[in-house]
Amino acid sequence: MVLPSLILKLTCHDQPGIVAKVANYVAMHHGNLVEFAQFSDKLGGKFFARLEIETTELTIDVQDFMDGFGSLGRSLQAVWHFRRLPYLMKTAVLVTKTDHCLQEILWRSKLDELPIEITSIIGNRDDCRSIAEQAGIPFHWIEMDGAQRQAGFVKIQELLAEQDVELVVLARFMQILPEDFCAAYSGQIINIHHSFLPAFIGANPYTQAYERGVKLIGATSHYVTADLDAGPIIEQEVDRVHHFHTPSDLVRLGRHCERIALAKGIRYHVHDRTIIDGHRAIVFPD
Amino acid sequence: MVLPSLILKLTCHDQPGIVAKVANYVAMHHGNLVEFAQFSDKLGGKFFARLEIETTELTIDVQDFMDGFGSLGRSLQAVWHFRRLPYLMKTAVLVTKTDHCLQEILWRSKLDELPIEITSIIGNRDDCRSIAEQAGIPFHWIEMDGAQRQAGFVKIQELLAEQDVELVVLARFMQILPEDFCAAYSGQIINIHHSFLPAFIGANPYTQAYERGVKLIGATSHYVTADLDAGPIIEQEVDRVHHFHTPSDLVRLGRHCERIALAKGIRYHVHDRTIIDGHRAIVFPD
Amino acid sequence: MVLPSLILKLTCHDQPGIVAKVANYVAMHHGNLVEFAQFSDKLGGKFFARLEIETTELTIDVQDFMDGFGSLGRSLQAVWHFRRLPYLMKTAVLVTKTDHCLQEILWRSKLDELPIEITSIIGNRDDCRSIAEQAGIPFHWIEMDGAQRQAGFVKIQELLAEQDVELVVLARFMQILPEDFCAAYSGQIINIHHSFLPAFIGANPYTQAYERGVKLIGATSHYVTADLDAGPIIEQEVDRVHHFHTPSDLVRLGRHCERIALAKGIRYHVHDRTIIDGHRAIVFPD
Amino acid sequence: MVLPSLILKLTCHDQPGIVAKVANYVAMHHGNLVEFAQFSDKLGGKFFARLEIETTELTIDVQDFMDGFGSLGRSLQAVWHFRRLPYLMKTAVLVTKTDHCLQEILWRSKLDELPIEITSIIGNRDDCRSIAEQAGIPFHWIEMDGAQRQAGFVKIQELLAEQDVELVVLARFMQILPEDFCAAYSGQIINIHHSFLPAFIGANPYTQAYERGVKLIGATSHYVTADLDAGPIIEQEVDRVHHFHTPSDLVRLGRHCERIALAKGIRYHVHDRTIIDGHRAIVFPD
Repeated sequence: MVLPSLILKLTCHDQPGIVAKVANYVAMHHGNLVEFAQFSDKLGGKFFARLEIETTELTIDVQDFMDGFGSLGRSLQAVWHFRRLPYLMKTAVLVTKTDHCLQEILWRSKLDELPIEITSIIGNRDDCRSIAEQAGIPFHWIEMDGAQRQAGFVKIQELLAEQDVELVVLARFMQILPEDFCAAYSGQIINIHHSFLPAFIGANPYTQAYERGVKLIGATSHYVTADLDAGPIIEQEVDRVHHFHTPSDLVRLGRHCERIALAKGIRYHVHDRTIIDGHRAIVFPD
Repeated sequence: MVLPSLILKLTCHDQPGIVAKVANYVAMHHGNLVEFAQFSDKLGGKFFARLEIETTELTIDVQDFMDGFGSLGRSLQAVWHFRRLPYLMKTAVLVTKTDHCLQEILWRSKLDELPIEITSIIGNRDDCRSIAEQAGIPFHWIEMDGAQRQAGFVKIQELLAEQDVELVVLARFMQILPEDFCAAYSGQIINIHHSFLPAFIGANPYTQAYERGVKLIGATSHYVTADLDAGPIIEQEVDRVHHFHTPSDLVRLGRHCERIALAKGIRYHVHDRTIIDGHRAIVFPD
Repeated sequence: MVLPSLILKLTCHDQPGIVAKVANYVAMHHGNLVEFAQFSDKLGGKFFARLEIETTELTIDVQDFMDGFGSLGRSLQAVWHFRRLPYLMKTAVLVTKTDHCLQEILWRSKLDELPIEITSIIGNRDDCRSIAEQAGIPFHWIEMDGAQRQAGFVKIQELLAEQDVELVVLARFMQILPEDFCAAYSGQIINIHHSFLPAFIGANPYTQAYERGVKLIGATSHYVTADLDAGPIIEQEVDRVHHFHTPSDLVRLGRHCERIALAKGIRYHVHDRTIIDGHRAIVFPD
Repeated sequence: MVLPSLILKLTCHDQPGIVAKVANYVAMHHGNLVEFAQFSDKLGGKFFARLEIETTELTIDVQDFMDGFGSLGRSLQAVWHFRRLPYLMKTAVLVTKTDHCLQEILWRSKLDELPIEITSIIGNRDDCRSIAEQAGIPFHWIEMDGAQRQAGFVKIQELLAEQDVELVVLARFMQILPEDFCAAYSGQIINIHHSFLPAFIGANPYTQAYERGVKLIGATSHYVTADLDAGPIIEQEVDRVHHFHTPSDLVRLGRHCERIALAKGIRYHVHDRTIIDGHRAIVFPD
């Protein structure tokens, strides 16, 4: 059970006294700081923090607490974000044919491992319809082949906007997102790439891995940017393979890496355990 | 290069405002808090923290800073400990015949991975003498068979006392320490057990593992208490094994687990990244 | 796609010439030996092999080929077993409340990772009914509390017999099987134990693990014998945990170890990649 | 202890009856086949095998046994190789400044994990001289900067030729080998690359890894070809890293991956457990 809480994420230039100032603000209003993760990046000169604050004893209204933080935040020239818990993040899952990543998300969501509300499952193929329907989630088949591609992406963005979607998960969605889509949902799209990035960028990574004769394969969950497969990495998983594994064996073994890397990546994001810093993602794991 | 710094470890009952109070104390005296790791143990009702504070800008003397913390520490009813960096911890390594753990410690120490000063290597066999001498470290052969055992442990304790040893590493030392020894160096003795504890307690864990037909073997570094192989665990490593591995293969594969688990265990301890809490060890890894 | 094939598993006393004799028999009848895994156990004096033989070019009938092997097998004083592929092994899955292991089995079976036909899902609670029904598999709720226990096991055995079940999977089935059940299905019952055996035998392994303060948790799939949690181990998985993980975090993290260890254990069994040898299992992994 | 034995490695086009023919040849002469590892590569149409044959009961001379295999080998149009055990492979280790890989090789060699005779340690810097001398192995400092490079490689090749070196290990040797060197020692040069290939080819992989923000780093041991960092991979290791790890932390953590991947790679090679097949290496692990 989650007590009424706030998550505060904060980024600013590194400077003495930040922890004291932030912790003071919390203590002054009788917030109970149950988790304080910070990272002083000496190389980049930045400070990153994630605070988990129970608000049951708060002496002021939670909204006032969040608003009141503004003057400290501004004085630190910080970027910050509050989230009130419990919270279910509105999430759309985009798929093509394969359903193992979708299944894993549905399954973990049902087990309360992922605090998300899946508003819709969107496919450029119809293959995942029955799984979506079995889970009681609306499925939208949006054809995107050839000339339909551009219109398809417009339809998807309309749908996301209508549903106030906050997180888009590309669960083995076999289409490259247009630049404006990436920009519109910057830091809100998570993809699973079926290789250990930056190895085997692009198509058919398992075939590439087979041909290169690697001894470990992997999967990478990352934020999507306009630069294909180059967005900030959230989580990576690997599994050992041998010479006798064919490309289709790699597909079989790799999908379990994909399931785990994607599920963990989503979990860290929806629990506000990630902060994007340029090409890299700060991740405070749980 | 390590800037002049302090490590502060602190344990107290969990209560609101601890982070603010401690961080305030640091900020007030212009300490630069570069790392703040904390753990609020909801189940146990305790608070644990480790702070790394650069002291180059400190407005008071470092000793005064440490002394001055006392009134806050006492008001929190905390147990706390300061360490000034850079620091080399005086360490004695106890061995019997096998030398791979000793080698690893010497090697990592030379590479500056372990900030220790090895004051002596003590063996109840003479096998490791040449390695010790090659490394330029005094070797003490103290016979401990049969009737010599008790006197041997007295000699070891005398030696440790003479050299102001702060950490005793049992690097495959094949003798059970007497209770008074464990008590005298409580929280200062680290052992490597060649199994994945609590599996295969006691003698010949690799033979036990072979007979049980396990598919993973491991090693565990832990603090030594009077209760054999039951002290707080610091680090564990595993490796995959197969049916075709004989007990001597397990010895061969296992020693690499031992090297890693022991080296990491020592590293966490000498960097003050561990706090013992009853049967468990809090470890803030780096 | 699986070409018509045979799997031959064979165990005998180690003796020179076995490989030649067996391979000759295959070659003589124009079988195509596509995989030959063997293990000469020097410590135990035994020989174990698993052969995969494509039979499309066989010059005699497949049944005759299998029958004809008898004279060689007897001359080697071997124990052997043929399996014709493709083959779906009739499997019953026993569950209580938690469904993650069941889900994983259903899911991998659907993806053709597990060549099984699930004839029934049997629960001593009713919790998994809807999952079973969604998958189109008959669900049997057999109450086993208190006085109903003995009759319950009789009913289960009747059901297994009726359906010619060859494999019984205990997918977090929270009942200890009676000795006669274990004996009747010797080598045909696979359990998932939610710890890294032989650590934390018995009830509540995650709570035990928390209290012991381990840094790795695990799961073990093993054959069931009358000796609780002591049957031959097929597969083990581990995951790293930290001091901040509560027992319920360990449950959450551990269930993914359980899913993987159980799925792999079943896969090795139904692909005839395991040979039981006393307390140990020979596993030729794929 | 190793009984007098032969290792036979064999590659040919896949065809029915190979195992029988080879095993018959062994059995006919009363060789005792203690290990038979094979791989029928359906995709490539090739057959690979490694046999370990005890020769104590052989009815003919070992040399005659090896010679006599020729007619079978030729009839299979195979490439094959025999090695008589016990055998110490003459090995040269090339280094620059860092010594951790060299140390690991010396250490495992001393522990009988690597059946090699290190004939010389060759450095383009003088840094590793004392380690070499402490181990009682001749150290050759061959300067290779700028204009001296070409002559340096000539000297190295002369030295290798004089000493009948069979294996060249690049233990963090920071020079790119000329094409003729690679050709002359094709399949006999093993390099450790300090990344998880094919990620981060070329210089400064840890800096690249830091900038890319990966969550796992690795190391790869591979055969050296004229195509930089693209030779057949033998072994790969990974370790988990976090956002707070600086490039120098990655160096620290990565060197343990390097030690393990290189030591395993060498072990598989000197135990004749590898067969190169184009860009890939078949590895029968132990």
